[in-house]
Amino acid sequence: MKVIVIGATGTIGSAVVRAISDRHEVIPVSFSKAVIKVDIADPKSITKMFEITGRVDAVISAAGLAKFGPMTSLTDADFALCLDNKLMGQVNLVRLGADHINNNGSITLTSGILSRKPIAGSAAISLVNSGLEGFGRAAALEMPRNIRINIVSPNWVVDTLRAFNMDPSIGTPVEVVARAYVHALEGSMNGEVIDAVK
Amino acid sequence: MKVIVIGATGTIGSAVVRAISDRHEVIPVSFSKAVIKVDIADPKSITKMFEITGRVDAVISAAGLAKFGPMTSLTDADFALCLDNKLMGQVNLVRLGADHINNNGSITLTSGILSRKPIAGSAAISLVNSGLEGFGRAAALEMPRNIRINIVSPNWVVDTLRAFNMDPSIGTPVEVVARAYVHALEGSMNGEVIDAVK
Repeated sequence: MKVIVIGATGTIGSAVVRAISDRHEVIPVSFSKAVIKVDIADPKSITKMFEITGRVDAVISAAGLAKFGPMTSLTDADFALCLDNKLMGQVNLVRLGADHINNNGSITLTSGILSRKPIAGSAAISLVNSGLEGFGRAAALEMPRNIRINIVSPNWVVDTLRAFNMDPSIGTPVEVVARAYVHALEGSMNGEVIDAVK
Repeated sequence: MKVIVIGATGTIGSAVVRAISDRHEVIPVSFSKAVIKVDIADPKSITKMFEITGRVDAVISAAGLAKFGPMTSLTDADFALCLDNKLMGQVNLVRLGADHINNNGSITLTSGILSRKPIAGSAAISLVNSGLEGFGRAAALEMPRNIRINIVSPNWVVDTLRAFNMDPSIGTPVEVVARAYVHALEGSMNGEVIDAVK
């Protein structure tokens, strides 16, 4: 299959590319480091990306900015960033991407563990992750031409925990997280939130 | 307790007022029909509402606009309405309201059954409802002075189903839905999504 991976140079995205590139044609896309670039917060940029890639069989998004921080310190601009980028950015990949995906294809978006297991500081991120999961369950009922949509909800990734000086033992190896995207891509599930944990 | 009920003239809000007004001091607020008005999509309007009401023990929101319709017909403006009104409107009641609520008080927001049981046409509403639930679970970890926050997720209300010419037998009487708000107000739960079903 011809598969766009957005966020292809990030921690999770690069693991997804490694996991599928031996048997699928991967088109890596990222905000700044890949040859093909996209700013998912800008619908025009999404449309331009699909003009460059042409029709594909699947889109995998492991992209999206959201702001972590004490709720009293989160500004209106912080919430707007979360809504415009990780939330509506990925929603717009679905709205604008459906016409560029072949019959029986798929779209896989990324939420995250904070949707169901919040921590202090995650108010905006938990909002975004839960919102994506609700959208995905609903959108699956309306996708055209047997195109499937699923949401991968990754646990904390071991490497991310190490980068933030947090206990890595609660994390999931990124290769295990990547497997959830492989299942969403190659399996038959639709409208599911796939918990990518150990 | 002194309790602001926002959306007090709506189907659910008016049932909440009926359920609690014999033993609490209710301040009814609505977009257009109550004496005290608020446009939850406008943070300045929320701040002005709290200036009028003064400090209270609890805020109950049964308010918020969101757009139902086939996903391909939902415009950018429709999604923006959903995000600005039902989603961020209620989030901003928490962000701006916390300072106006007494110690050990509570805030109760409204999501809805479409968060977990979507139907064709609910993509934007399911996004908003799920996002509110994720926000509520997370915000509960950071509320000051033992202020609690909970989200009531009402099933379809019988009267609403009748109004839309849908089968009322799958619905819940509004008096039963109102009980969930009473539990959130008078109970001790925090960070919970309360399913208001039969």
